[in-house]
Amino acid sequence: MYSDKNASKLKIIPLGGLEQIGMNITAFEYEDSIIVVDCGLSFPDDDMLGIDLVIPDVTYLEENIDRVKGFLITHGHEDHIGALPYVLKKINIPVYATRLTMGLIERKLAEHDLSESVRRKVIKFGQSVNLGEFRIEFIKTNHSIVDAAALAIYSPAGIVVHTGDFKVDYTPVYGDAIDLQRFAEIGHKGVLALMCDSTNAERPGFTPSEKTVGKAFDTIFSEHMDRRIIVATFASNVDRVQQIINSAFKFGRKVVVEGRSMSNIIETAQNLECISIPDNTLIPIELLKDYPAEQTVIITTGSQGESMAALSRMASGTHRKISITPNDLIIFSSHPIPGNEKPVTKTVNTLLAKGAEVIFQDVHVSGHACQEEIKLVYTLVRPKYSIPVHGEYKHLMAQARLAKEIGVPNENIFILNSGDVLELNEEGAAVTGRVQTGAVLVDGLGIGDIGNVVLRDRQILSENGIIMAVMAIESESGMLISGPELVTRGFIYVKESDAVMDEMREIVQLAIERLADRGVKDRNKIRNTIRDELSSYIWKSMNRRPMILPVILDV
Amino acid sequence: MYSDKNASKLKIIPLGGLEQIGMNITAFEYEDSIIVVDCGLSFPDDDMLGIDLVIPDVTYLEENIDRVKGFLITHGHEDHIGALPYVLKKINIPVYATRLTMGLIERKLAEHDLSESVRRKVIKFGQSVNLGEFRIEFIKTNHSIVDAAALAIYSPAGIVVHTGDFKVDYTPVYGDAIDLQRFAEIGHKGVLALMCDSTNAERPGFTPSEKTVGKAFDTIFSEHMDRRIIVATFASNVDRVQQIINSAFKFGRKVVVEGRSMSNIIETAQNLECISIPDNTLIPIELLKDYPAEQTVIITTGSQGESMAALSRMASGTHRKISITPNDLIIFSSHPIPGNEKPVTKTVNTLLAKGAEVIFQDVHVSGHACQEEIKLVYTLVRPKYSIPVHGEYKHLMAQARLAKEIGVPNENIFILNSGDVLELNEEGAAVTGRVQTGAVLVDGLGIGDIGNVVLRDRQILSENGIIMAVMAIESESGMLISGPELVTRGFIYVKESDAVMDEMREIVQLAIERLADRGVKDRNKIRNTIRDELSSYIWKSMNRRPMILPVILDV
Repeated sequence: MYSDKNASKLKIIPLGGLEQIGMNITAFEYEDSIIVVDCGLSFPDDDMLGIDLVIPDVTYLEENIDRVKGFLITHGHEDHIGALPYVLKKINIPVYATRLTMGLIERKLAEHDLSESVRRKVIKFGQSVNLGEFRIEFIKTNHSIVDAAALAIYSPAGIVVHTGDFKVDYTPVYGDAIDLQRFAEIGHKGVLALMCDSTNAERPGFTPSEKTVGKAFDTIFSEHMDRRIIVATFASNVDRVQQIINSAFKFGRKVVVEGRSMSNIIETAQNLECISIPDNTLIPIELLKDYPAEQTVIITTGSQGESMAALSRMASGTHRKISITPNDLIIFSSHPIPGNEKPVTKTVNTLLAKGAEVIFQDVHVSGHACQEEIKLVYTLVRPKYSIPVHGEYKHLMAQARLAKEIGVPNENIFILNSGDVLELNEEGAAVTGRVQTGAVLVDGLGIGDIGNVVLRDRQILSENGIIMAVMAIESESGMLISGPELVTRGFIYVKESDAVMDEMREIVQLAIERLADRGVKDRNKIRNTIRDELSSYIWKSMNRRPMILPVILDV
Repeated sequence: MYSDKNASKLKIIPLGGLEQIGMNITAFEYEDSIIVVDCGLSFPDDDMLGIDLVIPDVTYLEENIDRVKGFLITHGHEDHIGALPYVLKKINIPVYATRLTMGLIERKLAEHDLSESVRRKVIKFGQSVNLGEFRIEFIKTNHSIVDAAALAIYSPAGIVVHTGDFKVDYTPVYGDAIDLQRFAEIGHKGVLALMCDSTNAERPGFTPSEKTVGKAFDTIFSEHMDRRIIVATFASNVDRVQQIINSAFKFGRKVVVEGRSMSNIIETAQNLECISIPDNTLIPIELLKDYPAEQTVIITTGSQGESMAALSRMASGTHRKISITPNDLIIFSSHPIPGNEKPVTKTVNTLLAKGAEVIFQDVHVSGHACQEEIKLVYTLVRPKYSIPVHGEYKHLMAQARLAKEIGVPNENIFILNSGDVLELNEEGAAVTGRVQTGAVLVDGLGIGDIGNVVLRDRQILSENGIIMAVMAIESESGMLISGPELVTRGFIYVKESDAVMDEMREIVQLAIERLADRGVKDRNKIRNTIRDELSSYIWKSMNRRPMILPVILDV
């Protein structure tokens, strides 16, 4: 019904999120209308030294700003909203999202002084937004954060269903189950393409309901009536916090929420009534000491072993208000995200060494759909084209295999790269071009001013340190009139390395004298000679390659 | 039979290996005799920037060198032999080990020019070594490397059984099953203490036989007759390589072994006849192109995603002789070691993106005993005291729980820290003191010259880079006569930051002029003022904290 042989094609252009976890952002373009789904950040790779976070390059949107109609945000996780304040400073367009998602976005806008300037609108499930040639309907889903939405994107070329991050939870903690009926109805209309969450596409079966975690908490609470309980989980998992509070209330315990990001999110959730906390249950951390330990629960950040998070500080004994004792039971209500295994294990060992008990199992379920749930959505939506999203290459591949099993022909499955322009309508689909994309590094207040040169220098500095050889040379004669002074950082412990420092100073001095004798005055030549001779001495004597920086002052 | 009320006590002193994975080394002391079991290295933590490896502080052995009789090595893994060449340079004492273990040690000694000076003796299973008051018997075990041994340490105070790293394999690939009879016989004599491998003490059940992996290879090989097969595994797992070669031979494929560490170990294993390779099966990598791809197998290092290993270079397209094609099946015959998940996943995604197929499951078994095997050894040995070894704190705790289940009284279980002196005999056991221990950092040829000051500097440099402000000042007047020259590395991309550089130069210039006007000549005061003013400008304008290094030359 949305197709017409002479009409234009729909373009789908992922601007991030396909080569890595995080930084989700996708543009949809039909003639003069562009809409953008999500605007996430990603966290820096191990080799991005000193970088705080990474945001997508939105040059394509900047260049087409006149046609860009708005951001549609599926849910409030950082990998879907985190880049918004940075990107909105460049392209100020309206933002549409559900209630809690908008609540979390508004916190960010306030931090970046954007509350006044950014137009925004809260959308209810079932409601639609009209933007240019597009109509976008928000559909209820379930995920590890409240108010997650799938989007049905209606265009003259056909309907695209974008699941966002989702799972199927028939018995969610807060609100309704995923609106499978609506998926089916839209499927019945005829869906051009399905863009479906791939995160768990390698895992067989169904993801269990969040409610199963609540039962596990009840069991653990009932078995540990004599101990203080500390639960670490993701700051944004409001439902998880709700269930911990439910168990605490049931067993007559007071609750402290600790960790800045968690306090912020719980406060937002309370204001929006996405969490219901019985009176006199939540207490400020200052009052903890007034209650017997076994009548308290601490809900805390730090489940990923983050070194500055509250739980890590408790473990290392640097938390100002909470000390771990052998009377503590610590529950990790989370799985380590790949890459975090070592810091998590370190935290666990430190807690155990303080005599505390630590529990992992049975108290975490994923927020993402497993294989049977993905197949269910495919079966309801029956898309012509499949475009797996949200995941690393191996996850996208796994969903492609599922799509094939379900009956999507191989040539109708598209594993895209960021920047690909996929043009599609009922008659066909093909990648027809590329736009500029990339990762913009944020370091402090600097956005995009750190590139490969700086990162490579940081890498060398981190492994071997730096040696500076500073001297003043008489401009005419090339004679040394002060220095060479050698300064090192991150290279050797200077106080115990007199011999090496003396040797290096002599090498520099001899090199300068030799060059002066030969009448060499070219500063670059002098610098290179000093660098080469120091470098070769250090490699031979210590097998190290520090950065060497000769600085010559002309007097 | 080894106990006597008036006799001295045995001292067990772990010098490393208890707070971390790796760096295993334990001293046993009875009156004037000291023997040392193992001498391993550990790999640097993430915050030990630029460090190559970590070895134990053996000050205690150096101070008691007259009493130290020898090193007894349980098996040839780096965490048990890796520190030997470094430590032997300080304390040259004889080394005792089984055949392959000694073969691998001899490679290290040769690299460090120690082949002539270090005395050593190969010990057969069942043989004993007499060292002072001790007799040490080598007992056959199974592990993920051939020729692994447990030690029965006979002292006048009683027998200690040290398992080394082990598993129970009734059907090993090479050689005999673990000598459970001998464990039982020694148990029957009466064992004072058991020091048992804890690595898998959290895992229920039994570790499967290495032979099960061979069957899995056969199945995979039979299902992929039309593809080239690449298998990544640990360089030192000779049995695994043997089984891959067996499958290759069975299916008529030629084998290439790629990766320096793996080639070395296989060469040593061949010389010692620990591996049997059918004629005309192993071919040099240069001949690979002469055979159809589907008639070849490449066995390679890189199963942990190590960036410089052969498989990673193949994946990234930088391997000189092997390119990945869609015709390749890559088998990871390994589990990622905690901390390596991200690089492994990165390698997998890169291989998949080149169209290759990647398989993980069913082709790896652990080399360490699970709970039922640990219980078996306890039941055969029936020790009076239990001293869990080899593992992080959580693993030691898990073994302590098993020991308790088996009937060892709580007060007879000792979870030690490195440096603890445990004194024990039939009458009692207690930690009675501490000796110096610690981690010595190796960076290039430097051993122990990198400490906390240098590491902290590397950390700062890695995150924010460095700014040097260099100037020459007239000694008397305090007037600036050259500079300030500003040089940065790892801070900002200077070519695009003229404004910032100009601003910083001006700040320095103004500060010096102001101080000169006021007659301030103290160089420290001048340096501190420059540092403070630059630092505050950079923090305010960019939220960054680079290292700032003013260098003043006096002219």
